[in-house]
Amino acid sequence: MNFSDKFNRAIDQNNSFVCVGLDPDPARIPQHLQTEANPVLTFVREIVQATQDLVCAYKPNFAFYGALGRSGWEALEAILDAIPESIPVILDFKAGDIGNTAERYAAMAYDCLGVDATTVNPLMGTDAVEPFLAYSDKCAFLLCLTSNPGSADFQRLQVGDQFFYEALIQKATTWSQTGPCGLVVGATHPEELASIRALAPHLPILLPGIGSQGGNAEAMVQNGLDDQDRGILVNSSRSILYASNGLDFADAARQATEDLRQTLNRARPKAVNA
Amino acid sequence: MNFSDKFNRAIDQNNSFVCVGLDPDPARIPQHLQTEANPVLTFVREIVQATQDLVCAYKPNFAFYGALGRSGWEALEAILDAIPESIPVILDFKAGDIGNTAERYAAMAYDCLGVDATTVNPLMGTDAVEPFLAYSDKCAFLLCLTSNPGSADFQRLQVGDQFFYEALIQKATTWSQTGPCGLVVGATHPEELASIRALAPHLPILLPGIGSQGGNAEAMVQNGLDDQDRGILVNSSRSILYASNGLDFADAARQATEDLRQTLNRARPKAVNA
Repeated sequence: MNFSDKFNRAIDQNNSFVCVGLDPDPARIPQHLQTEANPVLTFVREIVQATQDLVCAYKPNFAFYGALGRSGWEALEAILDAIPESIPVILDFKAGDIGNTAERYAAMAYDCLGVDATTVNPLMGTDAVEPFLAYSDKCAFLLCLTSNPGSADFQRLQVGDQFFYEALIQKATTWSQTGPCGLVVGATHPEELASIRALAPHLPILLPGIGSQGGNAEAMVQNGLDDQDRGILVNSSRSILYASNGLDFADAARQATEDLRQTLNRARPKAVNA
Repeated sequence: MNFSDKFNRAIDQNNSFVCVGLDPDPARIPQHLQTEANPVLTFVREIVQATQDLVCAYKPNFAFYGALGRSGWEALEAILDAIPESIPVILDFKAGDIGNTAERYAAMAYDCLGVDATTVNPLMGTDAVEPFLAYSDKCAFLLCLTSNPGSADFQRLQVGDQFFYEALIQKATTWSQTGPCGLVVGATHPEELASIRALAPHLPILLPGIGSQGGNAEAMVQNGLDDQDRGILVNSSRSILYASNGLDFADAARQATEDLRQTLNRARPKAVNA
């Protein structure tokens, strides 16, 4: 099934716009898991089991696996195997490189790891993005206006009569005619989100930065939905993964996911049965 | 030894500005290696053995290992072990993410893989770069004006009275006061290189795009050297790795490296005994 269909079915099935970011920090994993053969794997697998009926997507962040070397790679593969086929997976590695290298990153994500979507850094331009667009059943989420403070350094530079991130959106809407893509917009920019949605009415938008980073969940729904009242993935990582560091970590993660799901659903234009 | 010292010693020891890019494409590896347990590992290890007295650095590109999954990761680790301690290694993964994730990428490169330098995509701004600068004995090469055609899409946008890539250089020179960094400038932009060097007189510059991408080797030396007649790494990947696809691939790679070394040395301001 292509990303778009899988994404929409997961929204319906779980009545959810929540994307859980799977960014395991070994230092924050509950003590009682530290003696497991692969603590990160056990930790994330339990998080997935506890939340899989409440989410519209999972987003493993490659850095957190890559930093663990071979055992991290093994954990990532096993975690991807443990995610139900019905839930789309976005590999967050913000890849961006010249054409022949971008092809290899796309192969890593789609052929080797078998995920449904990726994040892509568009700074290097068209030929850095095209290899991802070539996978017509996947989706490349392009960095647009990121959640972090440093997003102001370059993404908000004035380019003619627009901001740099608006020039990115313009390109993205052109690229979307070649192959499926979306945008990454930090949940810390609720006001800009409305104008970004106006510039890109049909692109799915991945919205990280809820929770630890302080993003406003309700505003993501109010300002981010497309004309089908869909098209957003609101990502939370740390606030869910580390909701508790005790024996009840999975239950606490489930509760944090459910709270976010309900918060988002309450903000939907027509009251949705949360 | 810190990156800067190691880099300068390698330049002197091997009388070379050549950086060999280790980007193994399984489809282009000589036929007779395809039956090896890990063809990519055998191939790259032989390339390293054949060229290690002719280079100032190696640059493995993560995409080419990541796309091979676990066996690619194993190959990368073993290749890094096989590179002599005296030759600096730049992990080319163009990482760029929010602070807590950038920390994990820096840990992947420096703590887990033990390389001497990385490439970093600065689009996400200061907090995406700082975790790399915090390693004071390493070096973060920041994308500036890349070698590919798509570099024109964003990097050449006009921002006030300068190009976007010049705004990047300005930030980079500020960041270099916090920790060691350099620039990535495509060898396909020989004229811009002179003005980039003027804007960043002391930063090391990694220059990919020689060979397959058509960059001009001599101009890299003429326009790129710093005031110590140093400070450049001219990278070639495909033209060296695939100089021959026969039994003589390592000899052919050595010859291609030597040819480039001599071409670069002949362009140095004072004739250097090549």
